[in-house]
Amino acid sequence: MADSKPPAYDEDSLVVSDDPHHPANHICTLCRNFYNFGWVTGTGGGVSIKHGDHVYIAPSGVQKELMKPTDMFVMDYKSGEYLRRPEAHKPSACTPLFMAAFTKRGAGCCIHTHSQWAVLVTLICESGMQYHGNTKVFAIKEIEQIKGISRGGYGNTNPKDEILEGGRKAGNLGYFDTLRIPIIENTAHEEDLRESLEKAIEEWPETTAVLVRRHGLYVWGKDVAQAKTQCESLDYLFQLAVEMHKMGLSWLN
Amino acid sequence: MADSKPPAYDEDSLVVSDDPHHPANHICTLCRNFYNFGWVTGTGGGVSIKHGDHVYIAPSGVQKELMKPTDMFVMDYKSGEYLRRPEAHKPSACTPLFMAAFTKRGAGCCIHTHSQWAVLVTLICESGMQYHGNTKVFAIKEIEQIKGISRGGYGNTNPKDEILEGGRKAGNLGYFDTLRIPIIENTAHEEDLRESLEKAIEEWPETTAVLVRRHGLYVWGKDVAQAKTQCESLDYLFQLAVEMHKMGLSWLN
Amino acid sequence: MADSKPPAYDEDSLVVSDDPHHPANHICTLCRNFYNFGWVTGTGGGVSIKHGDHVYIAPSGVQKELMKPTDMFVMDYKSGEYLRRPEAHKPSACTPLFMAAFTKRGAGCCIHTHSQWAVLVTLICESGMQYHGNTKVFAIKEIEQIKGISRGGYGNTNPKDEILEGGRKAGNLGYFDTLRIPIIENTAHEEDLRESLEKAIEEWPETTAVLVRRHGLYVWGKDVAQAKTQCESLDYLFQLAVEMHKMGLSWLN
Amino acid sequence: MADSKPPAYDEDSLVVSDDPHHPANHICTLCRNFYNFGWVTGTGGGVSIKHGDHVYIAPSGVQKELMKPTDMFVMDYKSGEYLRRPEAHKPSACTPLFMAAFTKRGAGCCIHTHSQWAVLVTLICESGMQYHGNTKVFAIKEIEQIKGISRGGYGNTNPKDEILEGGRKAGNLGYFDTLRIPIIENTAHEEDLRESLEKAIEEWPETTAVLVRRHGLYVWGKDVAQAKTQCESLDYLFQLAVEMHKMGLSWLN
Repeated sequence: MADSKPPAYDEDSLVVSDDPHHPANHICTLCRNFYNFGWVTGTGGGVSIKHGDHVYIAPSGVQKELMKPTDMFVMDYKSGEYLRRPEAHKPSACTPLFMAAFTKRGAGCCIHTHSQWAVLVTLICESGMQYHGNTKVFAIKEIEQIKGISRGGYGNTNPKDEILEGGRKAGNLGYFDTLRIPIIENTAHEEDLRESLEKAIEEWPETTAVLVRRHGLYVWGKDVAQAKTQCESLDYLFQLAVEMHKMGLSWLN
Repeated sequence: MADSKPPAYDEDSLVVSDDPHHPANHICTLCRNFYNFGWVTGTGGGVSIKHGDHVYIAPSGVQKELMKPTDMFVMDYKSGEYLRRPEAHKPSACTPLFMAAFTKRGAGCCIHTHSQWAVLVTLICESGMQYHGNTKVFAIKEIEQIKGISRGGYGNTNPKDEILEGGRKAGNLGYFDTLRIPIIENTAHEEDLRESLEKAIEEWPETTAVLVRRHGLYVWGKDVAQAKTQCESLDYLFQLAVEMHKMGLSWLN
Repeated sequence: MADSKPPAYDEDSLVVSDDPHHPANHICTLCRNFYNFGWVTGTGGGVSIKHGDHVYIAPSGVQKELMKPTDMFVMDYKSGEYLRRPEAHKPSACTPLFMAAFTKRGAGCCIHTHSQWAVLVTLICESGMQYHGNTKVFAIKEIEQIKGISRGGYGNTNPKDEILEGGRKAGNLGYFDTLRIPIIENTAHEEDLRESLEKAIEEWPETTAVLVRRHGLYVWGKDVAQAKTQCESLDYLFQLAVEMHKMGLSWLN
Repeated sequence: MADSKPPAYDEDSLVVSDDPHHPANHICTLCRNFYNFGWVTGTGGGVSIKHGDHVYIAPSGVQKELMKPTDMFVMDYKSGEYLRRPEAHKPSACTPLFMAAFTKRGAGCCIHTHSQWAVLVTLICESGMQYHGNTKVFAIKEIEQIKGISRGGYGNTNPKDEILEGGRKAGNLGYFDTLRIPIIENTAHEEDLRESLEKAIEEWPETTAVLVRRHGLYVWGKDVAQAKTQCESLDYLFQLAVEMHKMGLSWLN
């Protein structure tokens, strides 16, 4: 965001591949699907994949469903320097937020949506009933789809039934567990969410996602498959919760 | 579910075919469509086809819209032994539930969805008004789409107007009939639904489907076409019932 | 519906064409789109095209999105005899209802949907407030999309501003006109709707569509384009009307 | 609309191109997508692109998802004369409204939708609470997606933080800004909206869109990308606002 624009690097070798699972191709495919789900409307939302020491990030302010691999930014994970920086684009303001999931949870993929169901859930929770300690929180239980969400831990890389440090169980949540997603306050500028997002990640070691009030969702996983399926399961639960709320049905019986 | 993992068998000849109606291909096509309907969000839901003495089952925990024929499990119907068991996957926890529809109803295809409309209908029915004897039940009548649901019997293989044992009529429900779908309690582990699902199938000889509270739907038919079209008709009726409930309109006048 | 099944005629020359606008091809394309709109769920709904003296009709009880041109029935318009009658299929029970639009209005295409919005509108109208003379009716005004519906007359073939017999104006409805669609009672068997549908067509010379209570919609036009766009405009208006009703907004101010 | 039909000009060189971003091709692609969003149902809605001194406009009364480049009208921007006028079609009644965005705001693309969310928002605003001075207005704030809407100015061509004449800031709205979209009264004939639309554009120098009561939305941008992404962001906000209204949540806290 400095006045002097940094130099652009068009290292195409980092983004050109015939493999549909190459991160530069994969992000394009994911974004087309996310667009159809209403998760990246306008130019909102985004996705980042960590591939070895390379972090691939969709640019800011572009139509996500039309992205090409050559639109991609690539950052060196260790140094935080750009290895590829397309001249035509601005880096995503979500970059420090994606990095928080990579560094603090060992995640391999992080997705940010503007899904209306996520926003509506935070609006319903504003009424103040869904506190947990000092943090606002979305909480629901006894819905089968909760089993699609990991019990947390470091990128959710642990097999079922393993005991993590601190005595927590690994694997996914069970039907009788309560799913809790912390809700942080929105800020005027997306990059300013970094501090509160990192704080939420630290204070909620079991969460695999953070809701941002009146804004959307950040969700991560050890790889693309886990991040994507958790994003789908959460979006399903948010939509169900909104419909339940409309009919006066409680989220926690 | 034993501690010692059973050996994997990659009998590709069972799943490789150019015929789009071969069960291994058909399951992949169905799952892509079901994904777009919101029936198999995350890695939820599933489908199984019985083809002669071979039972084809989608694996557990995979993204259903991305499945390939080689991901498929194949079980011998008579012995219950796996003829094909891909090393990369776990067998579906729904397997004993699919088998219940095959053995107790002579079904040729069984579908399991996590459709939100199914879940919402079970949530509305929790309020206690929709009992039928001792079982919770979803009941609706005088909606044309009810005619898309079979009157029940053994896999719904009977032509219209035939009289089944016990004096029941075969064929599909009529406009003035009441559609009743039993609702069973959910369990912590999917495979533990087996006993109550089998009991519901026995106690409700006319039903072609069973709702699972806060979880979803099991629906079967004599073949893929009947299972799929009944699943669509039921999902239509569940969605309509939710919208009717929102507007204070009764399901049974 | 006679006990002795009439002979099947597989006159493929009537349905095989490279022209995407040939009725046998066109019906298949339309049904795939209608399936995605939720208009022909399960095996519900249907469509018929009159092409010269040939009437093309989708068969009964098939998955509409999977139809092939060779599945099509072809009837001689003047004699009412089948020119083509695929052995694998049953003729549609909607056939006499499609014929009513062709004979009484000179229509070239008639569409039947099970759209939930149509069904919900008839359910809301059951409350009794929307009578017009002795008939139940759906009525709405001052919504721009009303301008997508013809003012009626014989297949809506008249140019704007022409005066029809009886002094009615031709062309489409205006923004300040009231759209009225009669609602007829449903019957146990679809073919038994014929009498009341024909009566509604006669008593409502300006209507281009008839709603069937708790069942769906019949809509026609001079050609496929008019029938399809009117079906879309009506479905839009039904959906809007349901949403308005949920929020306590009047359809007629 | 004159009695004597003007001559048709089939200047195909103006609309035939291999470039998918050529305006004649681009309008066809956009309309297929807008159809799937429910923005151009029936034959409603439309889009126009200004390309140098040529204005490309979709014709009136056609199925927008089926348009071909050769269906397009082309007008000379300076003279207002048609350079291309397909004989089979009528010019769009929206033409003077699209021209208002081009001449008064320097826009490069203008979109008109019949989106139900836009219509429902104007219906909710009819209740009278959302006035701003003498004009009815839709207003919402503190929703992240507001940042997808430009702060206004002449076609929104100004970089962030530039100060426009009159002291207004350029760039997009911020999270804490209030988005205000004026609502003008609908008229019997679309072309008669011109005067009030031009008045709204003059009186609301910061707006990039105008709602038409019980009709839909006009939205523009400096180019296709900005017009389209703003249209998406507004439609998102209208849908969210309707859902908020259903649950008694205020648009302005």
